[in-house]
Amino acid sequence: MDTASPFRSVAIVGLGLIGGSLALATRERWPAVRVTGVDTESVIAHVRGSGAIDRSATDVNDVIDADLIVLAAPVRQNLDLLRGLRAMAVVATDVGSTKRAMVEAGRAVASAKFVGGHPLAGAERGGFAYARADLFEGRPWILTPDGDRSKPEVEALSRFVAGFGAKPVSMTAHAHDQLMAFLSHLPQLTASALMDVVGGATQAEGLELAGRGLIDTTRLSSSPANVWRDVCETNADAIGQALDLLIARLIDLRGRLDRSEAIDELFQDSAHWRGVLMKGRE
Amino acid sequence: MDTASPFRSVAIVGLGLIGGSLALATRERWPAVRVTGVDTESVIAHVRGSGAIDRSATDVNDVIDADLIVLAAPVRQNLDLLRGLRAMAVVATDVGSTKRAMVEAGRAVASAKFVGGHPLAGAERGGFAYARADLFEGRPWILTPDGDRSKPEVEALSRFVAGFGAKPVSMTAHAHDQLMAFLSHLPQLTASALMDVVGGATQAEGLELAGRGLIDTTRLSSSPANVWRDVCETNADAIGQALDLLIARLIDLRGRLDRSEAIDELFQDSAHWRGVLMKGRE
Repeated sequence: MDTASPFRSVAIVGLGLIGGSLALATRERWPAVRVTGVDTESVIAHVRGSGAIDRSATDVNDVIDADLIVLAAPVRQNLDLLRGLRAMAVVATDVGSTKRAMVEAGRAVASAKFVGGHPLAGAERGGFAYARADLFEGRPWILTPDGDRSKPEVEALSRFVAGFGAKPVSMTAHAHDQLMAFLSHLPQLTASALMDVVGGATQAEGLELAGRGLIDTTRLSSSPANVWRDVCETNADAIGQALDLLIARLIDLRGRLDRSEAIDELFQDSAHWRGVLMKGRE
Repeated sequence: MDTASPFRSVAIVGLGLIGGSLALATRERWPAVRVTGVDTESVIAHVRGSGAIDRSATDVNDVIDADLIVLAAPVRQNLDLLRGLRAMAVVATDVGSTKRAMVEAGRAVASAKFVGGHPLAGAERGGFAYARADLFEGRPWILTPDGDRSKPEVEALSRFVAGFGAKPVSMTAHAHDQLMAFLSHLPQLTASALMDVVGGATQAEGLELAGRGLIDTTRLSSSPANVWRDVCETNADAIGQALDLLIARLIDLRGRLDRSEAIDELFQDSAHWRGVLMKGRE
């Protein structure tokens, strides 16, 4: 029931794919909640007709009655927004892909209790045009409280996002950033590097002959640079360690390409993990 | 018209995904062509009910009337079959993923003119159970003649496979192996290595939180080891060079993760090549 919503007025800063989907999902699941969209004039003009927001602002500090503030811009912008937050709220959270820098910045914020958040949902294309109310359905939504100090806030956020069908999962910002370095950041950078190398070596004439294998393996390579610049900068140490492991694996393989036991070992191990990855999904 | 088929009796050795699809496609497009399936007794028993073949044999040298012999086993088995070929035919070809070793072995064959072949078609799963008459529709079918000595045979094969909707493309075995090292072999090994590293680091609990990015990037990692063992062994030099380029790209990236211009450069270049790759496909 809508009366059970833990928040009554939500300000969403950044109305791209995630922020826009959050506005639409709030509208659908918690219709009595007041939704304020915060973005540039031109984005607001685009979003207004959709009915996803009740009110708009171009500065989050002009929103005086929100009890939840969600930062949904790229990570470095979220960091600046959080450090400059003066609007009073019960909880502030974000939806960015790295968490340690945000949680650290959140310690200095006096106007709201900050709890880091990361919905593990995405789509091939960004922007409000691709936003969907059901984007978070069945997907994990990681929350990264700073120690034990935010139990009621974590509980309220968990109830709120569970309303969209998301599955709230709590872990430390450190554990989150380590895990995402492998599950998300390493695959992204590998797909980009692979596409760069294959394109450079084969050129357009070669790529014309490519099949579904290359197409699937490099799907992530059209991701936007502005989002990933911030991710790499705020998780460089963990991503570096993940890259080191992949580089070492490739160097080992490279030295044993003509040894059938080396190929068997790689394919057995990777098929095993692929089976674990796909378990319950097909 | 069926009377236009350049071959009247085709023996297909190995009735897996490619060989089985070739049998079904021949049946559909060239119904008067006699199709002999060559495989083990147990595979033949499985295939017989499908109507894909007219006759069967367990040894290609027992097939006395074929004017086209197609080797559709893994590469090293194809090499052994080609070296031992005594059955007389106009043309022998294969459908394997590497071509230099086959073309070289083909020079010593007296009973048929050998022209290497490689249909760039595949599916997520192998075996006759997944074979389809339309597998080659719209896909390139590379032919690798040994110099200029096989013009009539290349022309006959081109007409035959164009009947299935495939697009015949001719190139040297060397050019083929170089190109495939980048378009196919490098993406395969990268997907396998990535899955191995990510699985090993995050274990089952971590993989449960993975999203579509990792799933797509590692789709190839369930490919069968027996096929890839042979590919790596017969194309080790070209694959090694492709791996060297990827490893160098990853090492360069690893050293500049916190430099926004390095990330921008990678994402710009890879998005450019991704655009070229996808041109005309979406």
